Amino acid sequence: MLKIGIINGPNLNHLGKRDKNIYGSLTLSEINQKIKHVAEKENMELMFVQSNSEGEIIDSIQKLSSQADGLIINPAAYTHYSYAIADALGDCPVPVIEVHLSNIFSREEFRQKSVTAPACNGQIVGLGYHSYILALYGLLALTK
Amino acid sequence: MLKIGIINGPNLNHLGKRDKNIYGSLTLSEINQKIKHVAEKENMELMFVQSNSEGEIIDSIQKLSSQADGLIINPAAYTHYSYAIADALGDCPVPVIEVHLSNIFSREEFRQKSVTAPACNGQIVGLGYHSYILALYGLLALTK
Amino acid sequence: MLKIGIINGPNLNHLGKRDKNIYGSLTLSEINQKIKHVAEKENMELMFVQSNSEGEIIDSIQKLSSQADGLIINPAAYTHYSYAIADALGDCPVPVIEVHLSNIFSREEFRQKSVTAPACNGQIVGLGYHSYILALYGLLALTK
Amino acid sequence: MLKIGIINGPNLNHLGKRDKNIYGSLTLSEINQKIKHVAEKENMELMFVQSNSEGEIIDSIQKLSSQADGLIINPAAYTHYSYAIADALGDCPVPVIEVHLSNIFSREEFRQKSVTAPACNGQIVGLGYHSYILALYGLLALTK
Amino acid sequence: MLKIGIINGPNLNHLGKRDKNIYGSLTLSEINQKIKHVAEKENMELMFVQSNSEGEIIDSIQKLSSQADGLIINPAAYTHYSYAIADALGDCPVPVIEVHLSNIFSREEFRQKSVTAPACNGQIVGLGYHSYILALYGLLALTK
Amino acid sequence: MLKIGIINGPNLNHLGKRDKNIYGSLTLSEINQKIKHVAEKENMELMFVQSNSEGEIIDSIQKLSSQADGLIINPAAYTHYSYAIADALGDCPVPVIEVHLSNIFSREEFRQKSVTAPACNGQIVGLGYHSYILALYGLLALTK
Amino acid sequence: MLKIGIINGPNLNHLGKRDKNIYGSLTLSEINQKIKHVAEKENMELMFVQSNSEGEIIDSIQKLSSQADGLIINPAAYTHYSYAIADALGDCPVPVIEVHLSNIFSREEFRQKSVTAPACNGQIVGLGYHSYILALYGLLALTK
Amino acid sequence: MLKIGIINGPNLNHLGKRDKNIYGSLTLSEINQKIKHVAEKENMELMFVQSNSEGEIIDSIQKLSSQADGLIINPAAYTHYSYAIADALGDCPVPVIEVHLSNIFSREEFRQKSVTAPACNGQIVGLGYHSYILALYGLLALTK
Amino acid sequence: MLKIGIINGPNLNHLGKRDKNIYGSLTLSEINQKIKHVAEKENMELMFVQSNSEGEIIDSIQKLSSQADGLIINPAAYTHYSYAIADALGDCPVPVIEVHLSNIFSREEFRQKSVTAPACNGQIVGLGYHSYILALYGLLALTK
Amino acid sequence: MLKIGIINGPNLNHLGKRDKNIYGSLTLSEINQKIKHVAEKENMELMFVQSNSEGEIIDSIQKLSSQADGLIINPAAYTHYSYAIADALGDCPVPVIEVHLSNIFSREEFRQKSVTAPACNGQIVGLGYHSYILALYGLLALTK
Amino acid sequence: MLKIGIINGPNLNHLGKRDKNIYGSLTLSEINQKIKHVAEKENMELMFVQSNSEGEIIDSIQKLSSQADGLIINPAAYTHYSYAIADALGDCPVPVIEVHLSNIFSREEFRQKSVTAPACNGQIVGLGYHSYILALYGLLALTK
Amino acid sequence: MLKIGIINGPNLNHLGKRDKNIYGSLTLSEINQKIKHVAEKENMELMFVQSNSEGEIIDSIQKLSSQADGLIINPAAYTHYSYAIADALGDCPVPVIEVHLSNIFSREEFRQKSVTAPACNGQIVGLGYHSYILALYGLLALTK
Repeated sequence: MLKIGIINGPNLNHLGKRDKNIYGSLTLSEINQKIKHVAEKENMELMFVQSNSEGEIIDSIQKLSSQADGLIINPAAYTHYSYAIADALGDCPVPVIEVHLSNIFSREEFRQKSVTAPACNGQIVGLGYHSYILALYGLLALTK
Repeated sequence: MLKIGIINGPNLNHLGKRDKNIYGSLTLSEINQKIKHVAEKENMELMFVQSNSEGEIIDSIQKLSSQADGLIINPAAYTHYSYAIADALGDCPVPVIEVHLSNIFSREEFRQKSVTAPACNGQIVGLGYHSYILALYGLLALTK
Repeated sequence: MLKIGIINGPNLNHLGKRDKNIYGSLTLSEINQKIKHVAEKENMELMFVQSNSEGEIIDSIQKLSSQADGLIINPAAYTHYSYAIADALGDCPVPVIEVHLSNIFSREEFRQKSVTAPACNGQIVGLGYHSYILALYGLLALTK
Repeated sequence: MLKIGIINGPNLNHLGKRDKNIYGSLTLSEINQKIKHVAEKENMELMFVQSNSEGEIIDSIQKLSSQADGLIINPAAYTHYSYAIADALGDCPVPVIEVHLSNIFSREEFRQKSVTAPACNGQIVGLGYHSYILALYGLLALTK
Repeated sequence: MLKIGIINGPNLNHLGKRDKNIYGSLTLSEINQKIKHVAEKENMELMFVQSNSEGEIIDSIQKLSSQADGLIINPAAYTHYSYAIADALGDCPVPVIEVHLSNIFSREEFRQKSVTAPACNGQIVGLGYHSYILALYGLLALTK
Repeated sequence: MLKIGIINGPNLNHLGKRDKNIYGSLTLSEINQKIKHVAEKENMELMFVQSNSEGEIIDSIQKLSSQADGLIINPAAYTHYSYAIADALGDCPVPVIEVHLSNIFSREEFRQKSVTAPACNGQIVGLGYHSYILALYGLLALTK
Repeated sequence: MLKIGIINGPNLNHLGKRDKNIYGSLTLSEINQKIKHVAEKENMELMFVQSNSEGEIIDSIQKLSSQADGLIINPAAYTHYSYAIADALGDCPVPVIEVHLSNIFSREEFRQKSVTAPACNGQIVGLGYHSYILALYGLLALTK
Repeated sequence: MLKIGIINGPNLNHLGKRDKNIYGSLTLSEINQKIKHVAEKENMELMFVQSNSEGEIIDSIQKLSSQADGLIINPAAYTHYSYAIADALGDCPVPVIEVHLSNIFSREEFRQKSVTAPACNGQIVGLGYHSYILALYGLLALTK
Repeated sequence: MLKIGIINGPNLNHLGKRDKNIYGSLTLSEINQKIKHVAEKENMELMFVQSNSEGEIIDSIQKLSSQADGLIINPAAYTHYSYAIADALGDCPVPVIEVHLSNIFSREEFRQKSVTAPACNGQIVGLGYHSYILALYGLLALTK
Repeated sequence: MLKIGIINGPNLNHLGKRDKNIYGSLTLSEINQKIKHVAEKENMELMFVQSNSEGEIIDSIQKLSSQADGLIINPAAYTHYSYAIADALGDCPVPVIEVHLSNIFSREEFRQKSVTAPACNGQIVGLGYHSYILALYGLLALTK
Repeated sequence: MLKIGIINGPNLNHLGKRDKNIYGSLTLSEINQKIKHVAEKENMELMFVQSNSEGEIIDSIQKLSSQADGLIINPAAYTHYSYAIADALGDCPVPVIEVHLSNIFSREEFRQKSVTAPACNGQIVGLGYHSYILALYGLLALTK
Repeated sequence: MLKIGIINGPNLNHLGKRDKNIYGSLTLSEINQKIKHVAEKENMELMFVQSNSEGEIIDSIQKLSSQADGLIINPAAYTHYSYAIADALGDCPVPVIEVHLSNIFSREEFRQKSVTAPACNGQIVGLGYHSYILALYGLLALTK
């Protein structure tokens, strides 16, 4: 049974209250429900973490990467400057896919640069909560 | 029955002969076989185009976007400078997902900027031929 | 009788389907009708080319510049990066005016730089299909 | 009867004494005669202003834009840095066309950026005094 | 009795006619009324200047800074390039506060850089006409 | 009774020990006393937070913005790179004013750029502890 | 017998009509004659391609690189932005030398950057048609 | 008898009140006395202008350049951005020397770029009021 | 007896698992043992902190700088963007030496800029765990 | 009999000890032997200079350019910043070809810019010692 | 009797052979004669050095600055990158004036930046050999 | 017995006369005495070189690197632009440590970039003459 860690970064705990045109209207827990639904169907076990703290996210990457077979991470705003999270991801012994709900490439200049993506296996952006679900399938493929 | 156009850009017809560490060892037609396999399972119809010519790619986007329910495009090197392809994608009435075999964000500086991604709905990179397959599922979700 | 070549670049064949707030609602053939109307009144002969292909546009510049007394070109997205088209224009023995339907200077950053304009005699932007018609009059004046 | 304000910026009062290869050999008043000639034919009324002072140009834009049906402005060197003139143009309730005698895009680097053009409806460059005359026709078309 | 000079730069005389989403709907004289109201309450004397001319603004800074106990300046578009105004402010023997009606940091790139702010004591932005009133109180505090 | 949250970022707990030429000689608690004094006079209730942790600051913004009628934030060094705090501020349903004790625009290059200011309603800088007090009055005005 | 492919890019078909101070007065076919003359002496077989189309140039690189023992390419204006041609060259199993008639390093800024050179074995510039002939000798040496 | 125009830009009328470490302690009229002293000795006639207004400085350049045999200009802060003054200087039929009291190259970044110097014959900086006197001698030499 | 605080930043707790070509094969606790060994010989007392959290690192700098006679800090990835840590170091009343195991100047572009080094007394890089030991000796020298 | 000066810059005296993947395994004197071999065949006289000193290289360019019919120079690292060598080359009355053993365009960023190439007739890079030999033939052609 | 050191940098020994439009037609020794002529009149003693070597120029600055009362230096191409010469000049206990024959600000981009000027008292450019003579007078004034 | 080469670059022969706030008050020979003192204690043999000449420094690196077991280099101003010294260091078969007396990271912008550090094993900055002594110990450790 494949174990996947799913890490969500700053302000994603406020989904549902954030700009709906950008992030959609689902709350994080509603999104997590949808992901779980797929995971159950595919017989995967999920471990969820959300934190606004860069340090806690690094702690989680370190911890989950030793327990899980793969990671999905949405570093949110940290995507654009956290070399510390990038280093943690680069140290991961398991595959990692970065996801974003919105298409970061059609937003503000600063959001178009991901410093964490080079440390991941791949990136999936712009497909709303489906980004997470496709990442699940991606890890399934990568870990076969 | 969902119809999907799949457009591959310059030099992708040489997959199999290109640097295997970056692009893997499958040929384009082997990759297409794998995609078709999934499409059949999901009851989708695929239309494949490959061209080294920027103009032909634009022609194909214009043509396929009026015939298909969604597009998958790997603009290859044109990703990084073809504003003409970007404009064609921006005019598309159907959803488009940009895909890349390799993680363009961990390669040369010039490959880390996609001028076409802002004109797409989303982007999937770094997962080898699975990038295409996840994009199929992504379009399935977006067009529901 | 003055002969004028009019060359339209990528995606302009889709006018009418493109964003009407930016490009207006006329199709390319409707615009061409309006230009022809003026040309007849001024006793000019027009030769129209539209292509999505950079190479074909260069071919046309080379060919038309030996047949016509002046050229009008809307290089569309190629405006912003095609040094090859710029070189072809720079070789032209007849006057050339670059035109744009929209005011490219109030749009995205990349559209605010024209690499082809330095190789032309002048540029007319932002006046919708009138940009073409004024260019006709401009060539009339330049070739007197 | 259409009223058009024509505003010329710094050093244009010295036309005729300036570099003839760039600006031609006509004086400003000779150019104005040629423009008036056309205006009479088209039944337009012209109001001319020339000033070397940024502040006076702004004053004129504010004043003329409430009296005229359209403005033609050649901000000369202010084109490249006067955000104050740009703001005045941006506030104009009537259409404005920016003109330049020379092709600013084939000159020094600093002349290739217009900070005022984004606040205008359009721009006509490089056609000598014809730039002004075409702008007259342009305003005629825009105000119909 | 504290004397305060209030200097408004280019196009602010057109408040009320400018984009209301950005600048609000009050005219400059209505704003001045509101400021005077507070000044009377706080027993301050105000000297108002508005000019579209960079030179006149410098003249006013030189003159008012020898008559007043503090200055409030909204250099409007000059904020972003007038090193000459910055030098005049830097020479001021009395405290100066720069104000802006709108939040210049959430607008166009060029508006996000103030070359005059380094020469002032402080800056207050984005609070509409309240920016001026808070600046009054700020000068009250600084000159105690 | 208006409730205002006041959030202070990294190293501001060391005020009094920091460079007095830049930050003044008051400790944070002495500054808070001065602010409280005004708040009592204006019948406002204050909630104070100070943290060196980016994550805790985001937590506080999320929490306080649901309890208070407005926020005052001095993000200190995070001002210059924390897009995560900026996102949290951008999600706030209540008005926010950014404050700084020193004039950040006359200091090192990196301090002259605020990534958080675009997500606030306004910014007040350079007026020492008065920056906070004016911000109180600013929120009073904005929330009327 | 060594087989060499020689690929000429956009506008080189117009040699003889282009600026003679930069490109010399020989036509492409006269240059080709001179190259053939050397090739015969050295017992080499030449395959010539000229195209204005980026796509056709890529097609030719793919085709000739499987038939020839080495390639000489003058990508002309594509030199400066065609990452697609660069990718095609990078995939070549045979040595490639980039040539230019003029010294691109003493011309406009944009011509001083070659994006294709990194994908070649070497580059020869500024020696007129001798650039091609020296490249022949270079390939002779490299393929020994 | 040689006639020389001496034009001083913004804030130089405040010399003596400005930062003495940078500009020295002499007033502009004291400096002018020292220059006159030399001019008398060398039998030159001087015409002095000082203005804070960019437009007036351009007016003066135009006027003095038709009356004098040479110009000395200290454009002060306009040095760094006034392309309009640069254009006026570039049109001058007589030699022009730019001067600065302080060594602009050892001051703030923005002061290290002169946009007006390219339009002058030469530049003399950093020698206090001697910069003007040496410029007198320089014009004497250039006009011999 | 000299007291020295040693602060290690994010991901350094994973030494031994990180890329051995860059960071060596020792764990952090093995490195600490080696440092302690020297400290005992030199009669110094060490206080060790490691944290992945920027906020905790700032807390530690504040706390240790009041208890120790000098600090050694390896801010790891925070080196390159944490102005908040830089501010904390700048406030330190005791000498601080920044250390890095690897030669950050021969790695990725972003690692070649340290924003924290300017706030330290010195920096020692590239000498593996010896960087820490030399820093001990450095503090010994600086605090004599 | 044609006389050619061959100037080699810093560290080229260490060829054979330098990185063989980049520079090959021949020593400078072995390379010189190969060049001499060709020169004898072509009846040319060679004058060799190698120096690590920028000044000596300039001295040699000045001296050899008055004795020889052409120069070949490999300025090694000075290629990338020695405007002094570039000036010396620009003053040369005889043709000069710049050569490099390695393909400088596929190496570090700083090696991709040659400040000396614009002052030469041409440049030959990436062909190992053949670069020198082709340059001999190039000078032969240029001096005919 | 005032002693002045005059140091000329690389390629200035070739004056007379260099581009006469830029540097004039006098040789260095003819220029030196003209300077000596003035020095004798003013009762100054001159010490001349010319070298193509950066190191020798630094040696000369160190030596002459201990023997002379002032220095005149034309660092030629080293002006634009020799921080080593700048450091030597910055250590000088006597005044230094940088001179240039040509107006470096109207030439190539790289010549418009002087890294040595900030370390000098002043700079005189563009006045041919008069630049040196005015510098003599300048030092006379500075050392009074 | 370990042999160490110590190379000091331009202007370091003037230590003691240079700005004491930056470089301290010791002369180079006093510093060398202190280093020798340690070397004797550690039974190391030292070879000292100082030169203002880039070429001589390269000569010394080449010579000493074949005689010594390690090098210490303070390239002074050459640190910031001498790619030629960097290449010489990169060719060294023995370990090299770069040292600086001052903290180059808290000084002028240009001093914050070392082009030579990437070619060294490590770097020690900001600890005055102790930088050299720690480097001795560093080499001791590296060569064990």
